[in-house]
Amino acid sequence: MSSDIHKEAYALLLADANKVLQLIEVQKINLTMPQCPVYEEVLDTQMYGLSKVIDFAKRLQLISHDQGKEIMAKLENELLYLHEIYDRRKVDDE
Amino acid sequence: MSSDIHKEAYALLLADANKVLQLIEVQKINLTMPQCPVYEEVLDTQMYGLSKVIDFAKRLQLISHDQGKEIMAKLENELLYLHEIYDRRKVDDE
Repeated sequence: MSSDIHKEAYALLLADANKVLQLIEVQKINLTMPQCPVYEEVLDTQMYGLSKVIDFAKRLQLISHDQGKEIMAKLENELLYLHEIYDRRKVDDE
Repeated sequence: MSSDIHKEAYALLLADANKVLQLIEVQKINLTMPQCPVYEEVLDTQMYGLSKVIDFAKRLQLISHDQGKEIMAKLENELLYLHEIYDRRKVDDE
């Protein structure tokens, strides 16, 4: 199997993960502005889609298990942090 | 690029599509039994996940545009049919 396709697959996944990261950043900014809506479901959907693509790439051995785990772990940590500040905003609103 | 990975990618996608087809079949059976719940969101989520994986496989040129379109079109037709009988059940319930 050519190694080009491995590199390309990994690069595509990183680019997809970066798009989700950007969405998370937008949500973080929205959280600081009470008038802006927070779209939790949008992020959950994006995370689900990316996890399916990473799973596919792993099954085809285009990326390693660890590479896939690393991409998801980074996003999950960011999401966790986002949820924490989201919960704090909800408490403040009450 | 090896053609093995193309075949393998296509076979994996067909297997994934078949899982969604089976879910659609289960929903069709549930629709004939008013006591059984219909999980539209579950199917929508599955379709979304599969569409992201097919999109990834197309971008990597593991499958052709037409192959991806064919897989999705078949499922979309089945879903359309499911929605038709679902709508009829809702009208009957009212």
